[in-house]
Amino acid sequence: MSNATPLNLADFIRDIPDFPKPGILFRDITPLLQSPTAFRETIRQLAEPFRGQGIDLIAAAEARGFIFAAPLALEINAGLIPIRKPGKLPGKTLSHTYELEYGTDTLQIHADAIIRPGCKVLMVDDLLATGGTIAACCTMIEQAGGAVVGCAFVIELVGLEGRKRIAKYPTVSLIRY
Amino acid sequence: MSNATPLNLADFIRDIPDFPKPGILFRDITPLLQSPTAFRETIRQLAEPFRGQGIDLIAAAEARGFIFAAPLALEINAGLIPIRKPGKLPGKTLSHTYELEYGTDTLQIHADAIIRPGCKVLMVDDLLATGGTIAACCTMIEQAGGAVVGCAFVIELVGLEGRKRIAKYPTVSLIRY
Repeated sequence: MSNATPLNLADFIRDIPDFPKPGILFRDITPLLQSPTAFRETIRQLAEPFRGQGIDLIAAAEARGFIFAAPLALEINAGLIPIRKPGKLPGKTLSHTYELEYGTDTLQIHADAIIRPGCKVLMVDDLLATGGTIAACCTMIEQAGGAVVGCAFVIELVGLEGRKRIAKYPTVSLIRY
Repeated sequence: MSNATPLNLADFIRDIPDFPKPGILFRDITPLLQSPTAFRETIRQLAEPFRGQGIDLIAAAEARGFIFAAPLALEINAGLIPIRKPGKLPGKTLSHTYELEYGTDTLQIHADAIIRPGCKVLMVDDLLATGGTIAACCTMIEQAGGAVVGCAFVIELVGLEGRKRIAKYPTVSLIRY
């Protein structure tokens, strides 16, 4: 991109009404992924606040989180910890069950995911909504011995106040609605 | 890495017996992901055979496929098409149902995932086993108007002969068992 026309990442987000249910306006990241320029700029902007902090690992929950966490890990020279739904990780796992609007959900990480105690871990996801998932992920990383040094999101739905759930961590988001 | 000690990616794969069921030896990629050096080298080796071919898009099925497809897309300056389980993609989708050892599975892509007809698409996944999933993905990409120019895998379980299912595409794998 020329410096004369800075890229507006929000231009690459498509609004889809009534998904996944009536009344919900879904912010679709697939146009952003289709554009190598926009995707690259997204990773650059996610990395920017966290460069030079000695971050050891990036952690993200499946599946969309992996799309941003994996390139970000390489961008800041960190390893990647996949956080998964139950039954997906083959080694010894730690599980965490957390409340959703209706019902509960469970996530798992490998018990040995944190290379050494106190490793600096950056949490990444595509979307910060109510914050339930990211708060659960932070808890799991700390239970496994990691130090959460921040949370980074492509999109933040500000009205849902998810940021309050992770108030103790530096949190950045690139596109806010 | 020094040139004197070339990295052996297989050293970063952990064997876990009896997962997901008795008698299955699971090849666990999480140690590879923990190492930024090994993860970076994996992406470099996946990209190598496909550089300079004008590939427009990388396509991968959730969830582990995203971990390699996303950095590979940036490495070769391509966009990314996520292929997902039903009900995850918000736009108009194409679906494809295919047979598994027991039962069937269904995957979806956005109907507008291929930017223009004839776009060159490289398929990526962590593992080539029986080839059912990757063959289904190739079919979907072609139905959406894309041209599949190859398939790239981190691990190939050679004895399962998945390569036969995608014999018409150039196929590379980095680690073979």
